[in-house]
Amino acid sequence: MNQTSKILEEAVNSFSSLPGIGRKTAMRLALHLAGLDKNKSIELGQSIIRLAEGLMTCKSCFAYSDTELCAICSDEKRDQSIICVVESIRDLFAIEEIQSYRGRYHVLGGLISPIDGIGPEKLNITELFDKLSANKYKEMILAIRPTIEGDTTAYYISKHLSNQDIKISMLARGVSFGSELEYADELTLSRSLLNRTPYPVHDNQLT
Amino acid sequence: MNQTSKILEEAVNSFSSLPGIGRKTAMRLALHLAGLDKNKSIELGQSIIRLAEGLMTCKSCFAYSDTELCAICSDEKRDQSIICVVESIRDLFAIEEIQSYRGRYHVLGGLISPIDGIGPEKLNITELFDKLSANKYKEMILAIRPTIEGDTTAYYISKHLSNQDIKISMLARGVSFGSELEYADELTLSRSLLNRTPYPVHDNQLT
Repeated sequence: MNQTSKILEEAVNSFSSLPGIGRKTAMRLALHLAGLDKNKSIELGQSIIRLAEGLMTCKSCFAYSDTELCAICSDEKRDQSIICVVESIRDLFAIEEIQSYRGRYHVLGGLISPIDGIGPEKLNITELFDKLSANKYKEMILAIRPTIEGDTTAYYISKHLSNQDIKISMLARGVSFGSELEYADELTLSRSLLNRTPYPVHDNQLT
Repeated sequence: MNQTSKILEEAVNSFSSLPGIGRKTAMRLALHLAGLDKNKSIELGQSIIRLAEGLMTCKSCFAYSDTELCAICSDEKRDQSIICVVESIRDLFAIEEIQSYRGRYHVLGGLISPIDGIGPEKLNITELFDKLSANKYKEMILAIRPTIEGDTTAYYISKHLSNQDIKISMLARGVSFGSELEYADELTLSRSLLNRTPYPVHDNQLT
């Protein structure tokens, strides 16, 4: 594309291989970096290399970690009696973001989806059961999205644990904050009516 | 933001310092890289570091270059009798993209703008004049955008060269390809009428 610099060209190519970044944006990013303080660019480059070389998966919860056991799993101050099961690391971060949950996590790495050929054995489900057997958790929250795959996964997990002494809960389903009732789908509206809660709810802290 | 990995956190911070990349996109990019083939990520990181360490400015045309003289300036096959003056490297790339110009370039590094305190001395204009004196160019194309600053800069350059034997041209101004006449501004429309060209134009090659 540009004839004056092979180095620039390579950087543009590398950037444009990233998701959501087209050739024009890649060029804009590369030119921005080229105009930037040298050390800042080097820092970005190095942090990407560190990401490739240093990042590993926590052997307990399967989130990304810098060490064998991630910072959450090795944090003794966090509540060790409650475990939150999520589909992906992204979901874990989303829950951490709201800063009201202080227990452990378990990342499944996907959802059961027979159509896509994803059975329980392809997910970190056995590891979850092993962990539940080895540790004394009082509660497990299934923080899994409300789709067919999500419901299937939640059902599979809960069924397997039906004769174990653990409270299993799931995220509340209902109308989203700020949404308009007239545009809510029927299932959501009927469920939120069925599972209506006492007014007002004072206790918005999870643990 | 995320408690499980400092390495990931650093990468997210680095990405979100780039223009047009917010925290969510930065996280998406970092997670994408984390899930990518290790070598591909390392390649991206290294190409960014090379950008910071290896990229320089061509001493003749002031475009980004890997060597003292850029690939265009050192290409003997290109037309050495014509020089195209542009505001920025981005503009140079835009012209190279259309693949119809085969002459030299000169990057000004900005436009004269008294309001912003940018005089000719802050741009690569002296270098342009030196280059024009030292070389035998037949034509100089002022490929500068049609704004007050652009017109001022073009006027300044052309005035300085008024008694020199060089043909000075500028980009044609008129209605854009695909635009609707009724929405064209008056100045553009009146100019395009005034500078109307014979129909049909067969010669769309620049050199």
